[in-house]
Amino acid sequence: MTDIVTFGETMLRLSPPRGERLERTRTLDVHPGGAESNVAVTASRLGADAVWLSKLPDSPLGRRVVSELRSHGVRTGVAWADPEATRMGTYYVEHGGAPRGTNVVYDRSDAAVTTATPSELPGGAVRNADLFYTSGITPALSPTLAETTASLLETATAADTTTAFDLNYRSKLWTPEEAGETYRSLLPDVDVLVGAERDIATCLGREGDPADVARDLAEEYGFETVVVTLSSEGSLAYHDGELHEQGVYESETFDAIGTGDAFVGGFLAKRLDGGEVPESLAYGAAAASLKRTVDGDLAVVTAAEVDAVVEEDAGGISR
Amino acid sequence: MTDIVTFGETMLRLSPPRGERLERTRTLDVHPGGAESNVAVTASRLGADAVWLSKLPDSPLGRRVVSELRSHGVRTGVAWADPEATRMGTYYVEHGGAPRGTNVVYDRSDAAVTTATPSELPGGAVRNADLFYTSGITPALSPTLAETTASLLETATAADTTTAFDLNYRSKLWTPEEAGETYRSLLPDVDVLVGAERDIATCLGREGDPADVARDLAEEYGFETVVVTLSSEGSLAYHDGELHEQGVYESETFDAIGTGDAFVGGFLAKRLDGGEVPESLAYGAAAASLKRTVDGDLAVVTAAEVDAVVEEDAGGISR
Amino acid sequence: MTDIVTFGETMLRLSPPRGERLERTRTLDVHPGGAESNVAVTASRLGADAVWLSKLPDSPLGRRVVSELRSHGVRTGVAWADPEATRMGTYYVEHGGAPRGTNVVYDRSDAAVTTATPSELPGGAVRNADLFYTSGITPALSPTLAETTASLLETATAADTTTAFDLNYRSKLWTPEEAGETYRSLLPDVDVLVGAERDIATCLGREGDPADVARDLAEEYGFETVVVTLSSEGSLAYHDGELHEQGVYESETFDAIGTGDAFVGGFLAKRLDGGEVPESLAYGAAAASLKRTVDGDLAVVTAAEVDAVVEEDAGGISR
Amino acid sequence: MTDIVTFGETMLRLSPPRGERLERTRTLDVHPGGAESNVAVTASRLGADAVWLSKLPDSPLGRRVVSELRSHGVRTGVAWADPEATRMGTYYVEHGGAPRGTNVVYDRSDAAVTTATPSELPGGAVRNADLFYTSGITPALSPTLAETTASLLETATAADTTTAFDLNYRSKLWTPEEAGETYRSLLPDVDVLVGAERDIATCLGREGDPADVARDLAEEYGFETVVVTLSSEGSLAYHDGELHEQGVYESETFDAIGTGDAFVGGFLAKRLDGGEVPESLAYGAAAASLKRTVDGDLAVVTAAEVDAVVEEDAGGISR
Amino acid sequence: MTDIVTFGETMLRLSPPRGERLERTRTLDVHPGGAESNVAVTASRLGADAVWLSKLPDSPLGRRVVSELRSHGVRTGVAWADPEATRMGTYYVEHGGAPRGTNVVYDRSDAAVTTATPSELPGGAVRNADLFYTSGITPALSPTLAETTASLLETATAADTTTAFDLNYRSKLWTPEEAGETYRSLLPDVDVLVGAERDIATCLGREGDPADVARDLAEEYGFETVVVTLSSEGSLAYHDGELHEQGVYESETFDAIGTGDAFVGGFLAKRLDGGEVPESLAYGAAAASLKRTVDGDLAVVTAAEVDAVVEEDAGGISR
Amino acid sequence: MTDIVTFGETMLRLSPPRGERLERTRTLDVHPGGAESNVAVTASRLGADAVWLSKLPDSPLGRRVVSELRSHGVRTGVAWADPEATRMGTYYVEHGGAPRGTNVVYDRSDAAVTTATPSELPGGAVRNADLFYTSGITPALSPTLAETTASLLETATAADTTTAFDLNYRSKLWTPEEAGETYRSLLPDVDVLVGAERDIATCLGREGDPADVARDLAEEYGFETVVVTLSSEGSLAYHDGELHEQGVYESETFDAIGTGDAFVGGFLAKRLDGGEVPESLAYGAAAASLKRTVDGDLAVVTAAEVDAVVEEDAGGISR
Repeated sequence: MTDIVTFGETMLRLSPPRGERLERTRTLDVHPGGAESNVAVTASRLGADAVWLSKLPDSPLGRRVVSELRSHGVRTGVAWADPEATRMGTYYVEHGGAPRGTNVVYDRSDAAVTTATPSELPGGAVRNADLFYTSGITPALSPTLAETTASLLETATAADTTTAFDLNYRSKLWTPEEAGETYRSLLPDVDVLVGAERDIATCLGREGDPADVARDLAEEYGFETVVVTLSSEGSLAYHDGELHEQGVYESETFDAIGTGDAFVGGFLAKRLDGGEVPESLAYGAAAASLKRTVDGDLAVVTAAEVDAVVEEDAGGISR
Repeated sequence: MTDIVTFGETMLRLSPPRGERLERTRTLDVHPGGAESNVAVTASRLGADAVWLSKLPDSPLGRRVVSELRSHGVRTGVAWADPEATRMGTYYVEHGGAPRGTNVVYDRSDAAVTTATPSELPGGAVRNADLFYTSGITPALSPTLAETTASLLETATAADTTTAFDLNYRSKLWTPEEAGETYRSLLPDVDVLVGAERDIATCLGREGDPADVARDLAEEYGFETVVVTLSSEGSLAYHDGELHEQGVYESETFDAIGTGDAFVGGFLAKRLDGGEVPESLAYGAAAASLKRTVDGDLAVVTAAEVDAVVEEDAGGISR
Repeated sequence: MTDIVTFGETMLRLSPPRGERLERTRTLDVHPGGAESNVAVTASRLGADAVWLSKLPDSPLGRRVVSELRSHGVRTGVAWADPEATRMGTYYVEHGGAPRGTNVVYDRSDAAVTTATPSELPGGAVRNADLFYTSGITPALSPTLAETTASLLETATAADTTTAFDLNYRSKLWTPEEAGETYRSLLPDVDVLVGAERDIATCLGREGDPADVARDLAEEYGFETVVVTLSSEGSLAYHDGELHEQGVYESETFDAIGTGDAFVGGFLAKRLDGGEVPESLAYGAAAASLKRTVDGDLAVVTAAEVDAVVEEDAGGISR
Repeated sequence: MTDIVTFGETMLRLSPPRGERLERTRTLDVHPGGAESNVAVTASRLGADAVWLSKLPDSPLGRRVVSELRSHGVRTGVAWADPEATRMGTYYVEHGGAPRGTNVVYDRSDAAVTTATPSELPGGAVRNADLFYTSGITPALSPTLAETTASLLETATAADTTTAFDLNYRSKLWTPEEAGETYRSLLPDVDVLVGAERDIATCLGREGDPADVARDLAEEYGFETVVVTLSSEGSLAYHDGELHEQGVYESETFDAIGTGDAFVGGFLAKRLDGGEVPESLAYGAAAASLKRTVDGDLAVVTAAEVDAVVEEDAGGISR
Repeated sequence: MTDIVTFGETMLRLSPPRGERLERTRTLDVHPGGAESNVAVTASRLGADAVWLSKLPDSPLGRRVVSELRSHGVRTGVAWADPEATRMGTYYVEHGGAPRGTNVVYDRSDAAVTTATPSELPGGAVRNADLFYTSGITPALSPTLAETTASLLETATAADTTTAFDLNYRSKLWTPEEAGETYRSLLPDVDVLVGAERDIATCLGREGDPADVARDLAEEYGFETVVVTLSSEGSLAYHDGELHEQGVYESETFDAIGTGDAFVGGFLAKRLDGGEVPESLAYGAAAASLKRTVDGDLAVVTAAEVDAVVEEDAGGISR
Repeated sequence: MTDIVTFGETMLRLSPPRGERLERTRTLDVHPGGAESNVAVTASRLGADAVWLSKLPDSPLGRRVVSELRSHGVRTGVAWADPEATRMGTYYVEHGGAPRGTNVVYDRSDAAVTTATPSELPGGAVRNADLFYTSGITPALSPTLAETTASLLETATAADTTTAFDLNYRSKLWTPEEAGETYRSLLPDVDVLVGAERDIATCLGREGDPADVARDLAEEYGFETVVVTLSSEGSLAYHDGELHEQGVYESETFDAIGTGDAFVGGFLAKRLDGGEVPESLAYGAAAASLKRTVDGDLAVVTAAEVDAVVEEDAGGISR
């Protein structure tokens, strides 16, 4: 029995050394990253039995991703594609301090995953899992993937597998209107909704006090849980008629990419382990704060470390 | 007045450290490379006024290429494409000793250059040059590029700009039949043909003694010069009714990629500088042998170094 | 059902950059390595379902090993030890060209694995496997491990799991007499014996024509197969009354450590996949030749690459 | 027609990795740097057609500089010197946090540039430019260079090329008295004066409210523009009877060296592009803030990035 | 005549690059470190004639330590041990920002030094020195070392060599009770006691106002000087009936390990050079603040730099 | 009592990574190197008590040299020069395979050492040593050094310190005539002459059979020993009326620079340790062959390694 199955794209992230610019760098660091595999890695490292589903080119680049995920204990269910006919998605990241900021150049078009159909993927894995997770990036990548995402959510729902979905709106992939329409079509099959306050406003048109937004969404769609992330303000969850708030744990940021996925992975891992919503929020927040101290997209942390942050900083609620 | 104008794709080459495999590398070295810019760089470094024409995404990755070519003195005439709508071509190279060999994974589909049309490129640069060079890779990349290649060769011919063309057959891009058909349509506008013995046989169907092949091609198409490269056997040229042979200069190979382009660049640079065919062949062979000692696709060599190889090794003809 | 289970120590190998000496290096490369995990990795990469059993300190160093093995698809059955009470075995390797050679400094005393008892290890994994493999290094590490090795071989034999054993004599761990005595006590439970010609002579006292030695050993102990490795001369196998010889495939050596384990892993993987002994020897020899081109102890190769070496170099038999 | 021509020394800057000291480092990073080429690079990257004039040894070290400047689009007019008879100027930089600070060791004596005479340099480039820039470092390097600097300023003035001069006092090269005397002899040929408040006080003896100092200098010497830089307080300009103030844009500093030159290059580039003085000051301040996020002396930034800083931080004036 | 002799263990510290974790690092930086050699290096660099005594395996790893210490001018008196029978102590350090912190994994058990006896060490060096220094780590490493430490302190006392001792309590090596008992047995032979406020409380049971604690200890044991370090609060010393306080000098911390030893080394070096206690405290505090800007355990600083910190920041006392 | 004192210049050698060219490298490796310190390091590492005399700028660069030499056990007698008034000698090395070869760019003019006078150096060290060594590079660096070299040789001779001198002709420093004249003036104070066959021919005009040349020189100047090095042919010595020949030990060359100095250092160390001339030649040849496997100018080898080469390869004489 699997605890958590995730489905989505994982790319190779290529980044120059600190202080160097993409325009003139001679070396690039390689880190696999993708919202759904980031969540699977966090969950696996924190004790869950995690599986990641996707489609990759049958090439050293595709194997690079599987190799990395496996190293964190994640099992992989990959449809291997013809490497001559498809590509490996990549993205370039340039870390820069203010006022330059972090710059991202995506090169993910026509990645193998954009052609993934339900029949290529192990549907049984979804049916036999406690929880299925994907994010709003996946259906944005291609019409095929939009259908596959819907199909997998339906499969999960039909099998009584809990479903979790993070809006993860990406403005470079589609418009708020397109995203909102797709989200609304998928949400009926979602049990646990995670969304950034901004994404909820932009794509679903819900603005105002985030607690009200969470409750309204929960009631409208019948979500088991709604988690709203508030950036540096932390997060809140509406669950079973109750509202729970969680602040962020302070950290020295080495690499901020993947922080949100570490939060989701930590939250879900604790929920799957029987944790209540408040402690799961704290666990997610702690995983997120630790992630920021580590290079790459992945939360290379241990359960003991996450526990320590939660315990030592029990008063870490910032609002 | 420009000495040499070249047109073609330049990619970012990404390669792991020696002894490391793509599947598990954590760093990649970055080297821009492409047949036509390799030729332009060699020619520029050896004294020619060289211009490279192409189309690139208007992104740090596109600027990476221009930055590198400019550093070798090459001027660039680039049509800048929308970075959201096109890509930067890349390829991955894994250097391995025998029996593993060097492994290449191309990721060049839909590169910005595949949409380049004559009207986007500075045709005046072609008309005002002594020589225009492109290779058989360029028309293979897209139907648009096949038309653009033909158009630029016509422009050059109409302006009495000498044209040089290297067959450079790439089996991952098209079939021998497709290549042969395109080659035959372009060759009437070519003055100097360069071709590997194997490519001539595979695509043009000419086999047998390479000297005979060279003469027959020259006579059939009216080429000013035909250069046939023979791998470790060196090269030969048929020019003005005469045959000239050239061996290879021995070298310790650090990186073999780009050797052929260094040969062509050296040969053309010497010809543009007034050299006779035999000494130009020697010059090209020397540039090629030096290239092999340097990391990356580019022949980072000086005219003095090339001269020294030719002089010290005057007897380097291996056949 | 598992194809192959291996048991033994894996250490962290620490090595300075090429040309640098341990005495003054400021950086060390880290590569996990150990005969039995090397074999498991090779087998896993070549298609076998492989499990590695051992005991490690519950520390980042222990997790470093598991992380690496998992990345190659190997599943791990690890008894986690108190990191305050035990150590991670390490060894330092300095690569040097002739006449300096490769220098190894072991720092493996009191490693966690030396305390591993059968009850800590998943005996079921051994019983449910097609093949169980360990080497003569394991019983040399401690009296406890000598008993555990014997116990696991007995468990396998009782469960009709085929057993394979590589003598792997290490003079820094014990004397030839000690090794020979232990070997002789274990061999009755061994089905497939692998041994270097030199180790067989040194520890078992069998010298002379290696074909005779193999046959005599097979007959005396009733081995299903005896494989004798002959260093640069290749290898030979005595199986089912027949003798088979295999040469080495030439390679440019980047890192020779782990070559023997790659050979064993390739041989066993092919045998488990239904290969006959001759083709399995060839497969092992090809895996070994490819291993030499890669940094570290592990054979980071693919089945396609091994196949290619065997096919392209069918005449690679050197004797 | 060239927009801007600069003249001065460029050195190779050699620096150990962060946290390491010169006394024990085993690697040095190489970055070409010099006030006048820094200004040319900034201006070129921000859209100006820029030329840098200097004298270098005809060696790989001299070519290292030209290669780097060309990569940023700067054209170079270099007098090549006998590498046996002259040197490449170098300097060593050790970055250290407080209380250690950044430590610089100059090794620039007898650099090739110290022998540069007007007849070796392309005077036509100066005459055909819109603006000629040099700094007070150049005449400090040798008596010959003092004369050459004066001559080039005269050439520019005679040709109605606007001249810009940054005092750039270096106490390791000469005394305040020597510098002041030379400055005063050159200023009659200067149109745009740039000076740090401290340098103006030390070498020209003008202290007090910087606005008054600027106006007084402008009136005394008839400068078109006087820009006074005030370190963390920003800058001010007196131009056409009006005073303009500009604050600094906050940045996370990765490497502060070259900040002042980025400011001057940005200011001049915007002026050459038709910008008024206030917006040119903002542009310079934005270029300077971005420079601080990048390793090396050069402002590897784009016009779009500079625009973004100016627009997003319109209220960034700190006084 | 030697100024200072120290005795203790030096280990090889192995640490991954910043942002990387031990669990997945592929490279480790190597820095020798140990309290007593850290003190010797600081003292030597600041002008003292320093000797370090210890026992090391006769291997490249042992020579690595001697090589590094010698490079800082420290002379070494090493008993060389059989590298097959003993080990080199190592420890792994992972630098992480909050909330992760710095993580240390010790691997020092059975190091060669734990077997060091007085007869193996050059007692004459102790007798001929002005000062002998060791710390509470040394007797904690083995019963043999506890005896050797006592013996060397007695030797020093008998020879009128001043003795200095830093409590340096390490909870991973022994309990507070064990430490306290050993400390109390050694203190009668100590002239200068250094102790962290926390160690004094934990092991010697002295709590309360640190000034009172220092005076009480001095009077009870007849110490010439008692220095109490107060972490970010600085330090204080009781000497000759007077109390002296010293704050910390602010610094940007690159690597905090070794800060305390740099303080002790600076303090002792200045005392040996004739400095009064207050200026010696300032000198130590300055050395400590500079140490924090440098990678590794050692204070790679110069006397001029320490002087500059003291002079420029004379008001750096924080309480 | 010192075994060997050497005097000469040590430079910082700066070299790009393999496969990279000086013209475009972004990092340089730093290795101190100089004939006389190379000899001192080899001798020290092989057991001699060695001292190196020189003059260096009192800067981190000067300390870089002392730090490195001390790490190999060499004591240093350095006259520290004003770092503002003098320089650190440097040289750039580019390793390239054939046909490019190794390229050296010297930047050593006006180094601090060129001003060294006898009164600045510890003459007592020379008088109290068994052997004084310098090479023909030293007097070539400046007229002052020529005088100082002569003076130190006289000092040694007067004190009955054996003197050894290696011609080490450098064509970039002086002409054969200048060198020959200086050599002839110094040789009367030399006891052990070392010279490459080519240098002896070029500067001293002695050609022909090297055995004859050695004997003739020994008889003419009354040398105790004459060693002639013959490049890949090995070396020979004429001593006490007898001729001894020594071949080279084969090695894989990682870095050939410093091979000759390793030979001299090994030869002198063995002679100082009481070795006869033939075994000292073998010892030198072995040290030289090991040196070639190590990066940098220094022979980072141990006596045990040198012994092993001599013993295992007793038949290594190539002529």
